[in-house]
Amino acid sequence: MPVVEVKMWPGRTAEQKVKIIAGVTKVFEELGVPKEQTTVVITEVDKSNWGWSGESAEALAKKKQ
Amino acid sequence: MPVVEVKMWPGRTAEQKVKIIAGVTKVFEELGVPKEQTTVVITEVDKSNWGWSGESAEALAKKKQ
Amino acid sequence: MPVVEVKMWPGRTAEQKVKIIAGVTKVFEELGVPKEQTTVVITEVDKSNWGWSGESAEALAKKKQ
Amino acid sequence: MPVVEVKMWPGRTAEQKVKIIAGVTKVFEELGVPKEQTTVVITEVDKSNWGWSGESAEALAKKKQ
Amino acid sequence: MPVVEVKMWPGRTAEQKVKIIAGVTKVFEELGVPKEQTTVVITEVDKSNWGWSGESAEALAKKKQ
Amino acid sequence: MPVVEVKMWPGRTAEQKVKIIAGVTKVFEELGVPKEQTTVVITEVDKSNWGWSGESAEALAKKKQ
Repeated sequence: MPVVEVKMWPGRTAEQKVKIIAGVTKVFEELGVPKEQTTVVITEVDKSNWGWSGESAEALAKKKQ
Repeated sequence: MPVVEVKMWPGRTAEQKVKIIAGVTKVFEELGVPKEQTTVVITEVDKSNWGWSGESAEALAKKKQ
Repeated sequence: MPVVEVKMWPGRTAEQKVKIIAGVTKVFEELGVPKEQTTVVITEVDKSNWGWSGESAEALAKKKQ
Repeated sequence: MPVVEVKMWPGRTAEQKVKIIAGVTKVFEELGVPKEQTTVVITEVDKSNWGWSGESAEALAKKKQ
Repeated sequence: MPVVEVKMWPGRTAEQKVKIIAGVTKVFEELGVPKEQTTVVITEVDKSNWGWSGESAEALAKKKQ
Repeated sequence: MPVVEVKMWPGRTAEQKVKIIAGVTKVFEELGVPKEQTTVVITEVDKSNWGWSGESAEALAKKKQ
């Protein structure tokens, strides 16, 4: 039954996404939720569309360089 | 007033999306909500970003073949 | 597979919610999605937490009276 | 047209929520969006349901005391 | 950076919610995301507001009894 | 702590998005939230995926011409 939505930056490989899906599903399995009942939806959000501390993550990344 | 967000796999035609928008709006119209008050937002999520049963929908689709 | 999230004001009866769930699911069934694959999640949002046109729906409702 | 969803802890007064709604709507007005086109939906999330850094905000708040 | 939203039925204890928060955060830590960068937001959705297979989870639960 | 999700049509420049991020963050700063605690996530939704009044925004835009 749980629906889990992940919003994160792009750049993860297919293998890493599978780890996210499997890992999140396992968290609920350990609480007694059959794995067939967990849905995970990943949305990749560009750094230019992600804001933190009043700035875009894109701008923040440039500053760090 | 209702805001309805649909998350689904890509691949629907523009015509099918219009059917989703019109159909969902009609559900609320039948409950007395003027159609101008219903917003529908469709997000298409790649199968590699969709997880079910601890696996990606992409992997599950391959297994079925 | 579709996950449909509805955000609306409180006040709908259980019967009306069932109509929303059944109606939305039917929209996707007509596009070929088996009904077991559609999840509908309704979130009820108080009018004081709903803003439109720069005002809360609560304030707008009072104005209309 | 923008739909803006705010997730935050409970405890804001009705007046503060109106400031959030008005303020967010204004941000888009300054970009040319008529205020009638902006919807703001606030969801209040209990600290026990909010996690950060692997702990609940509730637990983190207790630690700070 | 990831923001993870969990929608699930009510009834989990505070301890179980902490396990969800810690577990989900750990999934991302194992991919190299410092735990301070992961936010988890849990929304509890009543069974009467949760639809599956065209019926409310509440109705489905009654049928099973 | 607030997480703010903006859904809007594509077409905004990077500069406009920065104004959205900065503006929304400021709304919360004025309520006492340190800017480091506000996350803004912008999702751009094609007009063909946006429905209003039972029609897609794409179709509505064509009508207006």
